[in-house]
Amino acid sequence: MKQTMGQSEPDRIIVRGKDLCEEIIGKIDFASMFFLELTGRLPSPGEARVVDAVLVTLMEHGITGTAIAARLTYLGAPSALQGAVASGLLGAGDVFLGAIDNGARVLQHLAREPVGDSRHRAIEAYLDDVATRNDRVPGIGHPVHKPVDPRVEVLFAMSEEALGHRTHPDVLVALQQRAAEKFGRVLPINADGAIAAILSDVGFDWRICRGFALVARSAGLVGHIYDEMTNPIAMDVWNLTDERTTYENPTPRGLPAAREV
Amino acid sequence: MKQTMGQSEPDRIIVRGKDLCEEIIGKIDFASMFFLELTGRLPSPGEARVVDAVLVTLMEHGITGTAIAARLTYLGAPSALQGAVASGLLGAGDVFLGAIDNGARVLQHLAREPVGDSRHRAIEAYLDDVATRNDRVPGIGHPVHKPVDPRVEVLFAMSEEALGHRTHPDVLVALQQRAAEKFGRVLPINADGAIAAILSDVGFDWRICRGFALVARSAGLVGHIYDEMTNPIAMDVWNLTDERTTYENPTPRGLPAAREV
Amino acid sequence: MKQTMGQSEPDRIIVRGKDLCEEIIGKIDFASMFFLELTGRLPSPGEARVVDAVLVTLMEHGITGTAIAARLTYLGAPSALQGAVASGLLGAGDVFLGAIDNGARVLQHLAREPVGDSRHRAIEAYLDDVATRNDRVPGIGHPVHKPVDPRVEVLFAMSEEALGHRTHPDVLVALQQRAAEKFGRVLPINADGAIAAILSDVGFDWRICRGFALVARSAGLVGHIYDEMTNPIAMDVWNLTDERTTYENPTPRGLPAAREV
Amino acid sequence: MKQTMGQSEPDRIIVRGKDLCEEIIGKIDFASMFFLELTGRLPSPGEARVVDAVLVTLMEHGITGTAIAARLTYLGAPSALQGAVASGLLGAGDVFLGAIDNGARVLQHLAREPVGDSRHRAIEAYLDDVATRNDRVPGIGHPVHKPVDPRVEVLFAMSEEALGHRTHPDVLVALQQRAAEKFGRVLPINADGAIAAILSDVGFDWRICRGFALVARSAGLVGHIYDEMTNPIAMDVWNLTDERTTYENPTPRGLPAAREV
Repeated sequence: MKQTMGQSEPDRIIVRGKDLCEEIIGKIDFASMFFLELTGRLPSPGEARVVDAVLVTLMEHGITGTAIAARLTYLGAPSALQGAVASGLLGAGDVFLGAIDNGARVLQHLAREPVGDSRHRAIEAYLDDVATRNDRVPGIGHPVHKPVDPRVEVLFAMSEEALGHRTHPDVLVALQQRAAEKFGRVLPINADGAIAAILSDVGFDWRICRGFALVARSAGLVGHIYDEMTNPIAMDVWNLTDERTTYENPTPRGLPAAREV
Repeated sequence: MKQTMGQSEPDRIIVRGKDLCEEIIGKIDFASMFFLELTGRLPSPGEARVVDAVLVTLMEHGITGTAIAARLTYLGAPSALQGAVASGLLGAGDVFLGAIDNGARVLQHLAREPVGDSRHRAIEAYLDDVATRNDRVPGIGHPVHKPVDPRVEVLFAMSEEALGHRTHPDVLVALQQRAAEKFGRVLPINADGAIAAILSDVGFDWRICRGFALVARSAGLVGHIYDEMTNPIAMDVWNLTDERTTYENPTPRGLPAAREV
Repeated sequence: MKQTMGQSEPDRIIVRGKDLCEEIIGKIDFASMFFLELTGRLPSPGEARVVDAVLVTLMEHGITGTAIAARLTYLGAPSALQGAVASGLLGAGDVFLGAIDNGARVLQHLAREPVGDSRHRAIEAYLDDVATRNDRVPGIGHPVHKPVDPRVEVLFAMSEEALGHRTHPDVLVALQQRAAEKFGRVLPINADGAIAAILSDVGFDWRICRGFALVARSAGLVGHIYDEMTNPIAMDVWNLTDERTTYENPTPRGLPAAREV
Repeated sequence: MKQTMGQSEPDRIIVRGKDLCEEIIGKIDFASMFFLELTGRLPSPGEARVVDAVLVTLMEHGITGTAIAARLTYLGAPSALQGAVASGLLGAGDVFLGAIDNGARVLQHLAREPVGDSRHRAIEAYLDDVATRNDRVPGIGHPVHKPVDPRVEVLFAMSEEALGHRTHPDVLVALQQRAAEKFGRVLPINADGAIAAILSDVGFDWRICRGFALVARSAGLVGHIYDEMTNPIAMDVWNLTDERTTYENPTPRGLPAAREV
């Protein structure tokens, strides 16, 4: 039988095969509903706890670039709240969130090898490839939280208790230790790496893991926009930037003087 | 003492005055966290239930225009998941969500008048103004769910039980009945109106009420994008549209033939 | 015969009824092409000049809120250039661009009345309505360029020369003079008002006039993003904002302490 | 002396070092202004012609996914035109535009080798790398325009005439011929490849080449939105999609049945 994302009839609404009024409203919480939306089934209590923990961890990070962008957009287009949220989301890209989906991709790849020599070899091969590409390992390293990101152990412990196993976190720890040895640097597991690991333990496809951050950030951005309504800072940011950022005009690289024809 | 949205120190992270690792992760759920983000305090259990009910109600509506837009955007820019979500959010504007914030604005305005003659007069004055402007009352009327939107009573009952009062829903019922008499049409309260009423009963400023829909739709859009990864329809939508929508080219209104000078 | 926006065949491409390779590339410039795209016909030389003048006037305004938002978005998502441009465009809303489409709407409304008493009465009625709504007249007033915005006379003179008439600029001058008398303030015509007037003189529907600003701003934002690649300021904006904008946490208006049930 | 993007004084406005009213409005066209915005200097007439040709080529492609997304967004948020344009731009990503910037990157890399053996070896090494990565060569291959994309020769001829040289087009032809031999397939140079080549001949940094498409598409999207105002199709697209796209619900890959704990 076919099952669609959702459909409406005059007297009832079906969402992912469940009756919205009978089975969802007042019956299940946001994290469970998001799980249902993604997977087509309700989560176990443990799965719901992991999803909730990931979402609350990612909601608010203070005055970040994305929050500033959303506030500036609200300043110019206050009647289009959706535009301010969208504007902030657009900065939630590779640089700050890439570690979540790329991290999950790497961990899901490595976890397919059995524990022991086989996995060691997979880790070694992966790190060699990273070194060759002069790249970084997603999910390890942090500019502020050293030597240990305080969120990591909390997330790992919660997830293990909730799910009854700790597969991808163990892969990440093994990867992190080998990377630290190999590259000779302090490279703590960061929160994005931990989130990649526990979402992988639930079973989510790495390609959608960034989506958890986007949902959480939407909520955070709505919070910032409401704060901007009552404690506006966007105009100050604009003025401050205008005053402080005088800079030389570049001669853009690669553009020679005009050749007249 | 100052309290900021959030701040990071090497060994701990504070969000809206709470320690993320000690007080939030694994301790509070998404709805409570979003409430904290908006208001600076944790919700009562009843307040959290209302927020949860609003968010799950608004998450998924089937193949809507915004879901199609997000899927089409994913088709062209699959490496930028944030763009696909943002693209879908941008259609969550006045036409489909205006009833939530405008409805809350009207209900919060009317609820300031004491029950009885005073409120009756306020309702009458408001409906006269709507008639003069040839406008519509936000939160009533629905193209499909007639005579009763099945979500409305579920939301009202849940909210009354959770909050212990039913202030703005009563205003909306009074408004809806008077509008139906005055305009001589079947105008059921719709889900957006019910959501406006119960968010107002929690105490949320009407200006941020659309934000609840944006957070819920973000989650729904992530669901549609994941569905698009596994059950792609965007290319079919494109082809179908291209085939079926041949149409006359307009002579744009107001643009006369060129006048040479 | 039907004419579509554009269509492709294996050996030729038709855009708005013209052969792209035979009639467009190398034959017409951007302003003429944009005119064709909007109206379905090529512009007169004068019409093309006005469109060009509007677009170049609106392209670059220095370090504005929208430019900062685009730069911050680029910082987080450098591989999705389209997201950075989109993010900046989203702040090009009512506050900064509303004067263009609203201004054109008002001018096109007033210009329908014949010059003389009839138009005087229409202007008077419009200004009375503005006063009643405690609103502002779009297209007049500027915080910096007083008493005269230097762009206005340049645009009016160029447009009159190019089009051979000066209809909507005259309406705007009459409106501005009466508003200054009535409200007792120096209210110069600003560049947005002038643009609304000359686009109306070409014959463009007021509902699409904001589109000219969006096209011009896209180009300006691409310029800022390229400048950000070579002269990055976004990280400084973020740090500066974080340092300088500590602020009190609000008790959001309208949200009472929790009532436990 | 410092030169900024732009700055305002009460009686004049400076953009990229030029006086807006004295030197820009009515004096230079859009393509020249965009060149100035990117590079800090005015173009030669030939450079301006190439920029114009690129922009007009990329403006309109009929009913594409991005045009449909913009129309659907306009349907839901008609008062926020900027959101509809932004929504359409967000689909202008790697899949459809990647060939422009990636193509320019490859051509600029290969063009650094002197003509002759050295360049042959660079082409061979590049194609070997493409084959190893199981990737495609950006700028060649097209699903519809076979065996020759009609835009390519027009663009190459115009650019050579305008600039007086034909460096990167020659690299692209050499690359295309060797790729066709090596991979044994008909792989015509496509319009994106040609645009990458001629923008490289002007001297633009490959990292900003996608920006030309974004500016042109903004104009095309404004055209579609205005067409949507007068010839609406978005609601039909929605209905058509809803009717025609019933589909199986996936069991998402990698998500096992819940394990209760």
